[in-house]
Amino acid sequence: MTIASSTPPAPRRLDPEDAQLALRQVQDLLRRQQLVSELAHRQYAENDRAGLMENLLHRQHDAEIKLLVDQLHPADIAFILESLPKDERQIIWSLVDHSHDADVLLEVDDWVRESLIEAMDRQDLVAATSDMDADELADIAPDLPPDVVAEVQKGLTDEERARLLTAMGYPEDSVGAIMDFEMVRVREDVTLEVVLRYLRRLGELPDHTDQIFVVDRQDRLQGTLPLTRLLVSEPETDVRDVMSPDFLALSPTDSDADAAGAFERYDLVSAPVTDEQGRLIGRVTIADVVDVIREDSDEQALSRAGMQEEDIFAPMRAAMRNRAPWLLLNLCTAAIASIVASRFEDTVSHIVILAFLMSIVAGIGGNSGNQTMTMIIRALAVGRVTPDNVWRLIKKELSVTLLVGLCGSLVAGGFAWFISGEISIALVMMGAMVCNMLVGAGVGVLVPMVRARFGKDPALGSSVLLTFATDSLGFFIFLGLATIFLV
Amino acid sequence: MTIASSTPPAPRRLDPEDAQLALRQVQDLLRRQQLVSELAHRQYAENDRAGLMENLLHRQHDAEIKLLVDQLHPADIAFILESLPKDERQIIWSLVDHSHDADVLLEVDDWVRESLIEAMDRQDLVAATSDMDADELADIAPDLPPDVVAEVQKGLTDEERARLLTAMGYPEDSVGAIMDFEMVRVREDVTLEVVLRYLRRLGELPDHTDQIFVVDRQDRLQGTLPLTRLLVSEPETDVRDVMSPDFLALSPTDSDADAAGAFERYDLVSAPVTDEQGRLIGRVTIADVVDVIREDSDEQALSRAGMQEEDIFAPMRAAMRNRAPWLLLNLCTAAIASIVASRFEDTVSHIVILAFLMSIVAGIGGNSGNQTMTMIIRALAVGRVTPDNVWRLIKKELSVTLLVGLCGSLVAGGFAWFISGEISIALVMMGAMVCNMLVGAGVGVLVPMVRARFGKDPALGSSVLLTFATDSLGFFIFLGLATIFLV
Repeated sequence: MTIASSTPPAPRRLDPEDAQLALRQVQDLLRRQQLVSELAHRQYAENDRAGLMENLLHRQHDAEIKLLVDQLHPADIAFILESLPKDERQIIWSLVDHSHDADVLLEVDDWVRESLIEAMDRQDLVAATSDMDADELADIAPDLPPDVVAEVQKGLTDEERARLLTAMGYPEDSVGAIMDFEMVRVREDVTLEVVLRYLRRLGELPDHTDQIFVVDRQDRLQGTLPLTRLLVSEPETDVRDVMSPDFLALSPTDSDADAAGAFERYDLVSAPVTDEQGRLIGRVTIADVVDVIREDSDEQALSRAGMQEEDIFAPMRAAMRNRAPWLLLNLCTAAIASIVASRFEDTVSHIVILAFLMSIVAGIGGNSGNQTMTMIIRALAVGRVTPDNVWRLIKKELSVTLLVGLCGSLVAGGFAWFISGEISIALVMMGAMVCNMLVGAGVGVLVPMVRARFGKDPALGSSVLLTFATDSLGFFIFLGLATIFLV
Repeated sequence: MTIASSTPPAPRRLDPEDAQLALRQVQDLLRRQQLVSELAHRQYAENDRAGLMENLLHRQHDAEIKLLVDQLHPADIAFILESLPKDERQIIWSLVDHSHDADVLLEVDDWVRESLIEAMDRQDLVAATSDMDADELADIAPDLPPDVVAEVQKGLTDEERARLLTAMGYPEDSVGAIMDFEMVRVREDVTLEVVLRYLRRLGELPDHTDQIFVVDRQDRLQGTLPLTRLLVSEPETDVRDVMSPDFLALSPTDSDADAAGAFERYDLVSAPVTDEQGRLIGRVTIADVVDVIREDSDEQALSRAGMQEEDIFAPMRAAMRNRAPWLLLNLCTAAIASIVASRFEDTVSHIVILAFLMSIVAGIGGNSGNQTMTMIIRALAVGRVTPDNVWRLIKKELSVTLLVGLCGSLVAGGFAWFISGEISIALVMMGAMVCNMLVGAGVGVLVPMVRARFGKDPALGSSVLLTFATDSLGFFIFLGLATIFLV
């Protein structure tokens, strides 16, 4: 955020386009730079003064970009870096003031951080990382060259080094991986007056401090003292008398998604993390939780299309590696479905119109099954499916599908009649469509449930199986019925 | 959350299954109740004592459920109500202590709230809603019977009534709809000592108060005073000297998604809302923002399958109304695609095997286009697409698709050769597949961009258009090439 001038400031309006505007300006400047270089090279290749001129303009552009970028919030700088192709990203990154290095490195997405670190020399890296907290360092350590990590470690206190090792030891999707170690702890037998004096001595409180943690001599968490309660209570009161002895403590091995659920449900801003003995070892804040929620939702959207997080300007090879496996998998299932269908070559050669109707049957089964599956995956995700209501759910999904299928099959049958002129084909079409929609509903209910039952992510891979089933069985049912009744 | 006993409490562990466990217990008790009723009715239909017995057991079960439910957090009660079919939901709702009514009504999803309100009598409704803040009341007012709203309004002060009208006037997805009016404001020319005394006099601060707002006599926002800074500064200091004159102010007409983006980017806990004159009119907190983020992500997942938020136990009619339009739409596009294909009836009747290969070509084009579209929609959503990089993006997507398509077509061609025994069919298959994947990539890039250009949600409806294009054109290209080269 920009620093306001000394005149009474007007409130800064939220402008979601702020960052995008800056991005466009940066792109504009980069483009002008390119143009100047090209002109200089083309027209005055031999001319020293053209070189000088180019150099001058180049420096001017750099200065403009630097001015623009340096007044941005690190989160906005990160956004711009993420939105540029690698070569331009490196140019901008080299212009970012070193004082922002650490914040930007922490803000950018993983796939960008790598390229930024690549472009920094050892000294800058050490400088940027040596002021980081243990939990921040743990986040980016995997991307750092080992010698930099070693160098930075030397500058840490024993306590910080221990924290770094702890933080690096937790798996990626655990509470341990998102917790930080910056928090204020007090004893329960002091007065609020003492706490207030202590806070003033600290001079600064960690970000997102909405509560102080009350611990005993063994560092076991006894309660929490919200700042709002600290502020409204009389200073003579003992901490013990105003703290909440009832609090929710996370374990470092809890999943981050569960923690996010708790934050969402109970509207938390921060939550303590304790070990098995109840000792306070860290804290999770809403800022990390919001990131978890956003990343999970992004991941789901991508994995549904068979992809992982990808730089929009990723090099060809990376993009291909990301996308090809999914397409190959779908190619294989489609091939198997077409083998199933080809068993009915005789039937189709008799009544060619079946060839054009069979993909409708397969497609609608897939669409309908996808609706059921989306419902079930969401119900599973929020924990709404219990042994008690499973049957009720399955029955409901099958009945809804049956009813929708019956209505839809009238339309489809009408179409089949229109295109083929034969009522018998229309009847086969209707029967096959209803059956295949039931197949879709069955697979849509069962696959996610079975996957969840065995502790797997119910969403992943379910859609491939669904399409496979509705395609293969759709062809089989439709052409099978046709073989029986029409040939 | 449960109230801890007076012995030193062990920290309560996060247990995401807590609510689910309670749900299962409730279901269990409901089931036992049902069983008892059935037994009593079946076996002793004529017997008065059986009726008495049933009554007794019934009351005992009710008491057990009540005991269980009353110790839950309102958010957990809401979860249980959302997870039960309507009839059982009403039973539990009637057992929930009235002191929880207001909180639960505010916590539950819209589609459940309606049925809960239906089940309450006028008096309970007035009691539950009369203690709500204006912004809370505005949230649920649309679901309330008009006479209840009128009754509750009478009990409001003029200021609260004005707020209620204001809050109800903003559209659903705006900052105005999620802001609240509970906040602490101070003048800049007082000392922190005065502020601290003022807070103590208030006795309680609104939830999620992480900062106090500094306003002038006209209520224009001058700055913000974070509680953490208030706590660490010397009491003699003036507010003016410690407040942040640089802050981000939302406008009530900003979109809630943009506000969520700002909270996420700048790690905010609360943000002031000001009118055009810079006067402070409300506040948005992270709790509302987290709900916005979650709801948006849920909505996206559902709309991709052509659905809206639906009760998992919604009555048949509601479920059908929710799902049928999407299936009908897909049925129509599939029918059109099959009409396109049926133009080539002669070709297919000559070479029947084409009928089984054409759906592979169509399917892979759709899958590949879906990957491209997912990338583009995400890039658009975060604002990464600018006029400057559009061409670069399109070129990249087409190149990646071309390369992946060439590799994939080798596999597909090999399969076609294997199944048909003819190399010419394999070559047609390869050509058609690459072309159709390029169609998919083109549609995947253009449709979301054009929709975004015209201010529409780029995600909505894009997938129907994509499938339509890759199906119809896939059939057309494949059968067209086959007609030219094979017949």
